Amino acid sequence: MASMTVGTVAEDTKSRLLATAVRLFSEHGVGGTSLQMIADELGVTKAAVYYHFKTKGEITEAVAAPALRELEQILDEAAAQRSRGAQIDHALAGFVDLIVRHRALVALFNTDPGVARAIDRSLRGAQNFKTRMVALLAGPDPDLAGVITVHVILAGLALTGGAADHEDLDDDTLRSHLFEVGRRMLGRPKRRV
Amino acid sequence: MASMTVGTVAEDTKSRLLATAVRLFSEHGVGGTSLQMIADELGVTKAAVYYHFKTKGEITEAVAAPALRELEQILDEAAAQRSRGAQIDHALAGFVDLIVRHRALVALFNTDPGVARAIDRSLRGAQNFKTRMVALLAGPDPDLAGVITVHVILAGLALTGGAADHEDLDDDTLRSHLFEVGRRMLGRPKRRV
Repeated sequence: MASMTVGTVAEDTKSRLLATAVRLFSEHGVGGTSLQMIADELGVTKAAVYYHFKTKGEITEAVAAPALRELEQILDEAAAQRSRGAQIDHALAGFVDLIVRHRALVALFNTDPGVARAIDRSLRGAQNFKTRMVALLAGPDPDLAGVITVHVILAGLALTGGAADHEDLDDDTLRSHLFEVGRRMLGRPKRRV
Repeated sequence: MASMTVGTVAEDTKSRLLATAVRLFSEHGVGGTSLQMIADELGVTKAAVYYHFKTKGEITEAVAAPALRELEQILDEAAAQRSRGAQIDHALAGFVDLIVRHRALVALFNTDPGVARAIDRSLRGAQNFKTRMVALLAGPDPDLAGVITVHVILAGLALTGGAADHEDLDDDTLRSHLFEVGRRMLGRPKRRV
């Protein structure tokens, strides 16, 4: 049991470390945040941070990884739907839900070139996700207009969901509005409520 | 004439300084860029930078100011149009044109929390612009759905216009696609071409 406790403490430090990193990244940008600042904020030594992550890039990757894994799963589920309409609705609903649940993280993804680049570099998840999402929402072999339309919708939903303007809205309200806006923009018929 | 030449040289240094700042901000974020880095990149002393700008905030403001002034003018012109449709088309066309002409700057606005915050703080231009743009595009007294729709469209257009994915598209192509996507999303009728 002793080793389990040690493991749990380490895990706890790790998750506190990631939460602190996200907060500092949001405030100062990734470029403006150092491992030393993260250590100071946590009240630990830089060596303690270094025990978990060797570089800021590793922290950025660890921050982004769970959300990207969720996205992959949403895309798999969406692709397994039978009709085009159900595929679009599933992908859109999953994307919007993810945005709303991880608002702070989304705001960070949206607003820091360091994060986006670190993810592209290390996970190649963002590019892969974008390609799959465009294929699902715009259909196979979309023309330029179709691709740009989907980009505008996804970027707009993500940026609006993470925006400070809507911080006061509760999750359910924000989720349902973003979903309806997305459906309308994608030309999906009105739902009966 | 001597003083005019000196003035011209100073102006030239200032505009080179701003261009260099934009490039460094894009690469390292505002938080990750120092006055010293800007001086080094320009091959001048920090004192020479300091002659023009006392703080990084002043540089950010100077970078953003011309585009915000253009936006104000577009909104004035749009508000002076007679029909709601013409108001929407004018505001949208002006916004899209500005995005496309200043792609690098827009990418920076979109992707750095430091820039957005500096603008909000020093010019209060961004918030004022957003309020006026929403009023123009969503109409007077819009409900939450209307406000969110306009936010998604504006954020989506700006993020897509500044995105690296579309770097290869020439200005005319990008401009016309973004304009058409925006019109469709705002429920404007198809134009005869």
